[in-house]
Amino acid sequence: MKAGILTASDKGSKGDREDVSGARVREILEKSGFKIVAYQIIPDERELIKKKLIEWSDGLCLPLIVTTGGTGLSDRDITPEATGEVLEREIPGFGEAMRAAGMQHTPYAILSRGKAGTRGKSLIINLPGNPKAVEENLNTVLPVIDHAIRKILGDREDCASLREKV
Amino acid sequence: MKAGILTASDKGSKGDREDVSGARVREILEKSGFKIVAYQIIPDERELIKKKLIEWSDGLCLPLIVTTGGTGLSDRDITPEATGEVLEREIPGFGEAMRAAGMQHTPYAILSRGKAGTRGKSLIINLPGNPKAVEENLNTVLPVIDHAIRKILGDREDCASLREKV
Amino acid sequence: MKAGILTASDKGSKGDREDVSGARVREILEKSGFKIVAYQIIPDERELIKKKLIEWSDGLCLPLIVTTGGTGLSDRDITPEATGEVLEREIPGFGEAMRAAGMQHTPYAILSRGKAGTRGKSLIINLPGNPKAVEENLNTVLPVIDHAIRKILGDREDCASLREKV
Repeated sequence: MKAGILTASDKGSKGDREDVSGARVREILEKSGFKIVAYQIIPDERELIKKKLIEWSDGLCLPLIVTTGGTGLSDRDITPEATGEVLEREIPGFGEAMRAAGMQHTPYAILSRGKAGTRGKSLIINLPGNPKAVEENLNTVLPVIDHAIRKILGDREDCASLREKV
Repeated sequence: MKAGILTASDKGSKGDREDVSGARVREILEKSGFKIVAYQIIPDERELIKKKLIEWSDGLCLPLIVTTGGTGLSDRDITPEATGEVLEREIPGFGEAMRAAGMQHTPYAILSRGKAGTRGKSLIINLPGNPKAVEENLNTVLPVIDHAIRKILGDREDCASLREKV
Repeated sequence: MKAGILTASDKGSKGDREDVSGARVREILEKSGFKIVAYQIIPDERELIKKKLIEWSDGLCLPLIVTTGGTGLSDRDITPEATGEVLEREIPGFGEAMRAAGMQHTPYAILSRGKAGTRGKSLIINLPGNPKAVEENLNTVLPVIDHAIRKILGDREDCASLREKV
């Protein structure tokens, strides 16, 4: 199963910070059998994040797109808003469950504002930027991701036929 | 107290599948003292679901409208989106509590995207399509439904006066 | 740290009911080191609530604005809707955590529809109108409020520079 990892980080996009979280997502997803076919670090720009999500969903038809970064309260954190604008159907349970699980480790997990949902045939999930939180959050939802993707893909439609519709 | 049950199911609406979930909702609600005055199976069509919810709320002034089906991730699942567009006030706690309770039985409960809220004097609640999940979900919120309806109906306004306003 | 308390209450605004909840919020916030520089009781009017939140955020640049009242299902309860329209970034975890904590005391906590989020450099949090619920809810999120405000304020920007931008 193909997946894409989108890291939202001003510092990372300028090469001022190593993308430890993106690497952590890759490691976990590859261990679960995913093949990472798209990976990019972009600055925390609403329109840029939206553009990339649309490209990977409508264009590349990736079954899974995971973002990391930009879910907090710093001035530039805007990933959930960008994501919310491109999602066609929200899955509120992902954010709820990740926050509930995270709060068993730290009360600050309450501040993580990540969204999840579908666009076309893509499952899109926001993860925080902190590497430890990334791991906790991703492991919380990992057991249901395969099932979710199967439901989204369905039986009859393939990516190409969808692309024509979108 | 009057209630309506709206089943969203492509197969059910064509008569290709028995509406076990709708029957389950009826059974539970009747046992709780509700009188089911409206019941319909419709296909998973966004505009059709919206139309029916508006009709039962603005037109019939039903204190309680329960939907079943269309809350998942299959291609045609669109009940929460249709519902969200007709709700005037969302009650996020219903979905949160139903998912949290459901996850004690199965991790897939995280994928149920049901919404709840008010329109006019109607309480509208989305339940999943799976009969077992329907039962678990409805029993989770049943203890507060009567109180919720009383709050929504208030003391002074009756349905007729509202209908004129809407 | 400066804070404002906005009580939404038809009866309170007419002087027909003492604002016990607002007083309770003040007590808790002052004990936590906040200085209450703005306090007002207004009727449950959507536009009035929005106007006041915008004034206290964009105008007064208050780091924390807490509302009490109007989060339930009574006819006039409209605080979450008004708040949602002025928020720039939602923090869903606050409502989720407050409801989950509240439900350990009463099942009716599920009906509390409070939102939270940021506008400019202000953290805005909706609390219920019931004094006991106010206390439970506020104490649930109090441990992370200081951290949240620091994140929102950031390092480089002060309130004046933001005001020019908004």
